[in-house]
Amino acid sequence: MPKPLPLFTGLSAFPLTPADEAGRVDTDALQALLARIIDGKANSIGLLGSTGVYAYLTREERRRAISAAVEAVSGKLPIIAGIGAIRTDAVQALARDAAEAGADALLLAPVSYTPLTEEEAYQHYATVAATTDLPLCIYNNPSTTHFSFSEDLLARLSKIGTIKAVKMPVAKDLAFAAEITSLREKAKEDFAIGYSGDWHAGSALLAGADAWFSVVGGLLPHPAAALTKAALAGNEAETARIYAMFEPLWVLFRAHGSLRVIYAAANLLGLTKARPPRPILPLPDTLLPEIEKAIAALPER
Amino acid sequence: MPKPLPLFTGLSAFPLTPADEAGRVDTDALQALLARIIDGKANSIGLLGSTGVYAYLTREERRRAISAAVEAVSGKLPIIAGIGAIRTDAVQALARDAAEAGADALLLAPVSYTPLTEEEAYQHYATVAATTDLPLCIYNNPSTTHFSFSEDLLARLSKIGTIKAVKMPVAKDLAFAAEITSLREKAKEDFAIGYSGDWHAGSALLAGADAWFSVVGGLLPHPAAALTKAALAGNEAETARIYAMFEPLWVLFRAHGSLRVIYAAANLLGLTKARPPRPILPLPDTLLPEIEKAIAALPER
Repeated sequence: MPKPLPLFTGLSAFPLTPADEAGRVDTDALQALLARIIDGKANSIGLLGSTGVYAYLTREERRRAISAAVEAVSGKLPIIAGIGAIRTDAVQALARDAAEAGADALLLAPVSYTPLTEEEAYQHYATVAATTDLPLCIYNNPSTTHFSFSEDLLARLSKIGTIKAVKMPVAKDLAFAAEITSLREKAKEDFAIGYSGDWHAGSALLAGADAWFSVVGGLLPHPAAALTKAALAGNEAETARIYAMFEPLWVLFRAHGSLRVIYAAANLLGLTKARPPRPILPLPDTLLPEIEKAIAALPER
Repeated sequence: MPKPLPLFTGLSAFPLTPADEAGRVDTDALQALLARIIDGKANSIGLLGSTGVYAYLTREERRRAISAAVEAVSGKLPIIAGIGAIRTDAVQALARDAAEAGADALLLAPVSYTPLTEEEAYQHYATVAATTDLPLCIYNNPSTTHFSFSEDLLARLSKIGTIKAVKMPVAKDLAFAAEITSLREKAKEDFAIGYSGDWHAGSALLAGADAWFSVVGGLLPHPAAALTKAALAGNEAETARIYAMFEPLWVLFRAHGSLRVIYAAANLLGLTKARPPRPILPLPDTLLPEIEKAIAALPER
C-alpha cells in the first residue's frame, strides 16, 4: 500500500519569519531559528506558515526567506513553503518562486476576501497544483481563512496528482480518530493527514495522524520532538507527561494567540528582536514573566 | 447640533472595478460605470469597495482606478476610496495615494489574516486616520474581514478627529432602529451611520440610517436612488413598492453573492467583459436568463 511522503510525517516545525517594521526579512535571525530546528530533530520545516507571517510579506521577501532557508538547511530537512495569497495568479507565481528557490513542498491555505465556494476553492487548488511538480499540502485553517473544507472536498482534492497532504485544524469535539478514519476512507491511499492546534497535537498523533504541524516546534523543537516521538510510538503515559510540561504555554496560547506568544518567547530567548507585523501588536511587558516561566518549564533537550 | 458630512449621507454607489485577468484596471469601462452613477443621481461613489474588488488589486492599479475616477467624476460627486490591506504601513501608503489622487474620503475595513484584538484594530485605525486629513469611514464587514466591531469600539473610534462614519452590516434580527439609537448615543454627534446589505437597505434608511452603501447602486443607480429617496422621506409604501421590484435580484444576491451576480449583470448590460478575479469564478451561463429577467424588472430611470 502506498504510504504518505516522509516529508509530511512527524514533527513539522513552523518558525517565525523575523522581519523589521517595514517587512524586510532578517535572514540571519531566520537561519538561527532553523539551526535550532535541525538540532532539535524535527522532521520538516514549515516555512512561511501562519506563524511565519507569510500573509504579511511581499513576494520578494518570501523568496528571500526561502533562499535563506535552503542555504541554512542544506538538505538536512525538507522545507515546506507557504504560498497562500488572495489571487490565484499570485499563488502560482509564489509556487514557481518556491520551486526555483529550492523548497521541497508547498503549503497552500485558501486565503480569501470574498468568501469562496467549494468549486472556487477546488479550481484554485487544481490550478496551483498544476503549476509546479512539488508535492502540495492543503492548509485547512478556518480560524485565519474562514474557509471550511468539507471531507468530500478534501477527498476530491486528494485525487489531484501533486496534492499529497492536509494540515487540519483541531477536530470537532476532539474526535480525531473518527475524523482520520473517515478521511482515510475517502482520500487517496498515500494522502498524509496532519494536525495543527498545538495543545491537542498529542491526541491527534495518538489517534493516528501522520504529522504535527507545530507552532511551538518552530521555537522549542526539542520538547516538541519528544512529544511527537512518544505519541507516534503510542506511548500515552509519556505523551501525557510531556504534554503537562507544555501546559503553561498552552494556557498563554489560548489566551493571547500562539503567534503573539511565540514572538514574545523568541524575544525573551534572545533569538530575534523582531515584533509581529502591525496591526498585530506585541504582548505587553507585564506578560513576559509568565511567558518566561512557561518556557523555563520545558527541557531544552 | 453638528450633522454628518453630506458625503456620508444618501446613496453611496459601489461600482465594480473592471480589470483584465492579470488585474490591470480597464479605466475606460470604470469611467463608463461612473457616468451611469452620476446620471443616476447617487450621492457619492464608493470606489474600490468589496464590490470594487480592492483586495485583489495592487497598489498601482488602485491608484490608477482612483485617478481615472477623479477624472471622470470631475467634482460632480464625492469619491470615497477603499484603502484596506493587511499591513498597517500598506494601508497608510494607500491612504496617501488616495489623497494625492484626489479622493474625497477613505473607507477602511480591518482586513486581517491573524484575527485582530479590539486594541489592535483601534491602533490600526488611529494610525491610518492620522496619515491624511481625509474623512474616514469605518468599513464594518464581518462577512469578508471576520472582524466584528463592538459598539464600544465604534464609539471609541468615532472620537478620533478624521473618523466620520461607519458602514454597518445588516443589524442583528433586523433591529436597525435600536442599533442606530444606541450607536448615536455613544458616538460623536456628527458620526454618520450607513448600512450595507442591499436587500435590507430600505428598512435601515426608514429606521434612521444616514446612508445606504449599495452594491446595486453601482450598476443600477436609478432605481437604487429612487428607493433611497423614498426611504429617507419616510415613505414606507413607496419604499416597499420599489423594494418589491428588486426582489428577484435580492434572491440571486442571497443565493450566489452580490459580487458574482453584479459581474454577470454588468456583462449582460454590455458595460464590461471583465470577470471577477480568480479564484472567484463567473456564474454559469445557465443562470444568465434569470439575471437578465431580474434586471429587466427594474426601471432604467
